[in-house]
Amino acid sequence: MSQDGGCYTWIWTCFFEYSTPKILLIRSRKVGAINRFIQAVIIGYVIGYVCVLKKGYQETDTVLSSVTTKVKGIALTNTTAMGLRVWDVADYVIPPQEESSFFVMTNMIITPGQNQSHCPEIPSATANCSSDGDCMAGFSDTRGNGVQTGRCVNYSASAKTCEVLAWCPLEEDVDPPEPPILAAAENFTVLIKNHIRYPKFNFSRRNILPHINSTYLTNCVFSRTTDPDCPIFRLRDIVSEAQEDFQDMAVNGGVMGIQIRWDCDLDMPESWCVPKYTFRRLDNKDPENTVAPGYSFRFAKYYSDGEVETRTLIKAFGIRFDVMVFGKAGKFNIVPMLLNVGAGLALMGLFI
Amino acid sequence: MSQDGGCYTWIWTCFFEYSTPKILLIRSRKVGAINRFIQAVIIGYVIGYVCVLKKGYQETDTVLSSVTTKVKGIALTNTTAMGLRVWDVADYVIPPQEESSFFVMTNMIITPGQNQSHCPEIPSATANCSSDGDCMAGFSDTRGNGVQTGRCVNYSASAKTCEVLAWCPLEEDVDPPEPPILAAAENFTVLIKNHIRYPKFNFSRRNILPHINSTYLTNCVFSRTTDPDCPIFRLRDIVSEAQEDFQDMAVNGGVMGIQIRWDCDLDMPESWCVPKYTFRRLDNKDPENTVAPGYSFRFAKYYSDGEVETRTLIKAFGIRFDVMVFGKAGKFNIVPMLLNVGAGLALMGLFI
Amino acid sequence: MSQDGGCYTWIWTCFFEYSTPKILLIRSRKVGAINRFIQAVIIGYVIGYVCVLKKGYQETDTVLSSVTTKVKGIALTNTTAMGLRVWDVADYVIPPQEESSFFVMTNMIITPGQNQSHCPEIPSATANCSSDGDCMAGFSDTRGNGVQTGRCVNYSASAKTCEVLAWCPLEEDVDPPEPPILAAAENFTVLIKNHIRYPKFNFSRRNILPHINSTYLTNCVFSRTTDPDCPIFRLRDIVSEAQEDFQDMAVNGGVMGIQIRWDCDLDMPESWCVPKYTFRRLDNKDPENTVAPGYSFRFAKYYSDGEVETRTLIKAFGIRFDVMVFGKAGKFNIVPMLLNVGAGLALMGLFI
Repeated sequence: MSQDGGCYTWIWTCFFEYSTPKILLIRSRKVGAINRFIQAVIIGYVIGYVCVLKKGYQETDTVLSSVTTKVKGIALTNTTAMGLRVWDVADYVIPPQEESSFFVMTNMIITPGQNQSHCPEIPSATANCSSDGDCMAGFSDTRGNGVQTGRCVNYSASAKTCEVLAWCPLEEDVDPPEPPILAAAENFTVLIKNHIRYPKFNFSRRNILPHINSTYLTNCVFSRTTDPDCPIFRLRDIVSEAQEDFQDMAVNGGVMGIQIRWDCDLDMPESWCVPKYTFRRLDNKDPENTVAPGYSFRFAKYYSDGEVETRTLIKAFGIRFDVMVFGKAGKFNIVPMLLNVGAGLALMGLFI
Repeated sequence: MSQDGGCYTWIWTCFFEYSTPKILLIRSRKVGAINRFIQAVIIGYVIGYVCVLKKGYQETDTVLSSVTTKVKGIALTNTTAMGLRVWDVADYVIPPQEESSFFVMTNMIITPGQNQSHCPEIPSATANCSSDGDCMAGFSDTRGNGVQTGRCVNYSASAKTCEVLAWCPLEEDVDPPEPPILAAAENFTVLIKNHIRYPKFNFSRRNILPHINSTYLTNCVFSRTTDPDCPIFRLRDIVSEAQEDFQDMAVNGGVMGIQIRWDCDLDMPESWCVPKYTFRRLDNKDPENTVAPGYSFRFAKYYSDGEVETRTLIKAFGIRFDVMVFGKAGKFNIVPMLLNVGAGLALMGLFI
Repeated sequence: MSQDGGCYTWIWTCFFEYSTPKILLIRSRKVGAINRFIQAVIIGYVIGYVCVLKKGYQETDTVLSSVTTKVKGIALTNTTAMGLRVWDVADYVIPPQEESSFFVMTNMIITPGQNQSHCPEIPSATANCSSDGDCMAGFSDTRGNGVQTGRCVNYSASAKTCEVLAWCPLEEDVDPPEPPILAAAENFTVLIKNHIRYPKFNFSRRNILPHINSTYLTNCVFSRTTDPDCPIFRLRDIVSEAQEDFQDMAVNGGVMGIQIRWDCDLDMPESWCVPKYTFRRLDNKDPENTVAPGYSFRFAKYYSDGEVETRTLIKAFGIRFDVMVFGKAGKFNIVPMLLNVGAGLALMGLFI
C-alpha cells in the first residue's frame, strides 16, 4: 500500500481498493462441459426445488381455525331394561358440546335404580371370601366397586363375596352387547362448520364454499365422488373411508380423526383454496394385550325423591370424533424470494 | 508436488501446503466504491435484518401454557314458560369445565316435560301426510324428531303429519327469541388465569403480574386504556373489541377467540414480558347460505318420579370463548449467534 | 474472446470456457498448520454438530396422537350434610369425557336443596344494609348470588343484608374443607392409552408396548424405577413426581401436566422408540396476590318433583390433568443429507 502523504491518504487509498483473484481462462470442451453441467444442476436446483417445489419465493403462514359440529339423527331401541325407547342428540352426545371434538354413544351397559346401600361385591381375586374373616372393613380395591363392610355374604347360590358399601345394585361385569344397542348411529349425520384464517395475509374462508346454496345444504351428504364439497357427513361413511367397519367399531367404541387440510396458494385464484377431508382411525384396534379395548366411560343421571338419591349408571361405549385442521398458505413476497434465490446463487458462485 | 523421499515425505509436504488464489489489486474509485457499497449492504443486512430484526443471536423457545377460567354473573329472566327465574354460573356454563374454552348460554328454546310417547311430527316435506298410507312404520328421517309409527294424525286444525315415537311434546321449530333471553350475559365477567412456561429457559410467568395486589384484583375489569393488566374481562367488552355487537351475537350464538400473546425477550428485564390480549370472532357471521347459523346445541335435564322418566330439553344458543395462547421467547446464545453471523460473513466473502 | 467466424462460433467457444483463479501454492509449516486446523474445525462441525448432534442426514416428522383415559377408584366420605357416602368414577370425574384431559374432584362445598326463592344475600360491601333504602330492586352485583328485591332483611342476629331472588339457600362463603373431603383420591389410578403416528414414515405405535401382557397390565402401577413402562398411574405418584404434595393440592385444586415424549430415531430398532413420562404442575401455586387460588368450578344436579325444581349446587375443587404428547421422529433421507453436507462443504470451501 502507498504510505506517502500520511495516514489519511493511506485510508483513502485503501477504501477505494478492490482485490480480485487473477483468473485463468481454460478453453477445453471437457472442462467447459463439466462446468456448464454443474451450473445447470445448480440452476435446476434453484428453479426446480427452491422455486417450484418448495415455493421459496413465498411467505408462509399457518392456519387458525374454529370448528363447530352438529349431530343429527334418531335411533329406536328395544331392550328388556328400558322397553321401546327413542334416542335423540341430547341423549347420545356426551358432553353436549366440546371444542373440536364430539362423542356419539353407540353402545351401553345400563344399571338403573342405584342408590347408596350394601350389596355383595362382583366376584374377583380380592372380593371372594368364605367367612367374614376374609373381608376387611374399610378396605377398597382400586378395581372394585365399593368399600368393604367386613361381612362375607352370598353373591349367588354358589359364590360368596365380601359385602361392600356402594351404589347398589352394582353394574354387572359383562362384555358390551353385540350387536351394539345404538347400531342405527351409522345413519346419523354431522354438520361440521369450519372457519379458517391466515392472519398474516388477512385471509378468511369457511368450508361452506361460496357456490353452495341453502337448498343443497339441507339435502346433501358428503361423498368423495359425487359431493366432495358438502360439509355434512354420514358417520358410517367417515368410518368406512378409514377402512373400518362401523358395526364392529360401535361395539367397543374408538377414536376417529376427521382431518381437514387447507393448503392454499394465495397467488392463485381464491376459489382454488378448498378443504380436503381425510378420515383415519386414531386409536389402536389391535385387540391383543389391551385392557379396556375401544373407548368407553361411565356417567350417571341423578334422581331424587326428596329423601333418597338414586341414579342410573351408564357405561357408554362410542366413537369420539376429533376434528383436526391443518394448513399452510403461501403468498409471493420479495424478502423470502431474495433470500432463497440469493442462497442459490451463492451456492452457484462457490462451484463455478 | 515433490515426490522425492518416498510417500511419507510427500504426505508430510502436502499436509503443510496452503493454496490461495493470486490476488489482483485494483485501485479505482469506481470499482472500489461499488465494492465497498456491496460490503456495506451485506453488513447492513447481517446487522439490521439478522441481528436486530430477526434477533439471530438468540436461541428461541415456544410457550407451554395452562389456562383456567371462572365466569361470574347473575341474570334474571321472566318468560311465560318458567316465570321469574334467576340464572347463575351453574345454569349457563355448559359443560361446567373445559380445558381452555368456556361456553356461556345467551339464548334458548326450552321444551319442558318431555317423555317417551307418541305425537305428530313437525310439518316438513317427509312428515306431511293425508292418510296412513303416506307414513311408514319404523322410518326415521335424519332431520326429523322421532321414528314414525305408520299413522297419519292431526298436527293442527289444517295440517296432518305422520305420528312419531319420540320425546313428546316435540321442540317447536322456531327461530331463537329476539332479544335473547339471557341478554344480561353481556355484564358477566370472566377471570382468566394463564400460567406460561418456556421450558428451555426454565422461565415461568403468569398473567396476574407481580405488581397487582388482591384488592385491585377483586374490583378491576379489563380495559385497553385504563386497566390493560387486569385479567378479568367483561363479556361485552370482549365482543365489542372484536368489532361485534353482543346483543346481535347473543341471539344465534357464535365463537369468540381470546388470544393471549407472550413475546418475551429474556435478555431484557423480566418485567417487560407481559401478555397482550386481542379478541376476534372466529366463526363466520355472514348469514347467507348457511345452515344453522351461529352456535347452538341441545342438552337435557332428566327427571324421574320412579316410573316415568321426563326431561327438559334445552336448545342452547350462546358464545363459546376459546382461549388461545401464543408466544416465543428468545435469549442470547453463542451457537445461533455464530451460525447466523458466520452465514452472513460467508455471504460477504462470496461477493467481495 | 475469439470473435472470428461470427456470433455462433463465439457462443460455442464461450460455452466451453471455464475460468478458475490462478492458485498460489504456499509451502509453510505455519500457514499450512493453520489451514489444516481450520479445515479440521469445519469438518468437525459438519460431522459433530450437523450429523451426530442435529442428525442433519435425517428427514423429520412431528407426532400425531390420540389419548384416552380411564380413572378407577372408590372413596368413602362421612360428612354431616350427606352421611356415609361412597364416590365412584361417575361421581367425581366431570365432565365424564374430554379430549385429552380429565378432572378428578378432590374437595367440594355442597349446597343441597336449592330452589328459586328469596333469601338474604351473603354479607359484603354491596349487600350490607340497614334499611330498605340501601337496597335497589333489580340490582345484581357481578360477585353476588342473586338479583336484589329491594328489601333489607336479617341475615343473622347481628347483620342485615339485602334480600335477593336466587337459588336459595345460598352457598356459604367459606374456605374449602381441610383436610379435603375426597382425600382418598390420592389412591385412584388412571389408565392412559396413547396411540401415536408419524404420518410421513407411516409409523404407528402405542404406549402399551409389545412386551407387556394382559396379566401385567391388570396389576401394574407406574413407577419410574420398577415399572417404567406401565401405562397405569397412581394420582399421588403423578403429583409427587412433580415435587408437590397431593393433600395440599387437593384442598384448593390445581392443574397437572402429564407429558409424554416420543423421540424416535427410526434408523434404530423399533423397540428403542418408547414413551418418556414426565409430570409437572402447570398452574401457579404461589398463594400471594391471587384471586380464587387453585382450580374450582360450580355445577349442579337438578331434581324436580313435577312442580318445583330443586338443585344440589356443588363447588368442586380438584385436579385437572392435561395429557400433552410431544415428539419428533427422524429417518435417513438423501435430500436433507445432501443439503446439510453440501452446506457444510460450501462453508469449508469459503475458508480454505
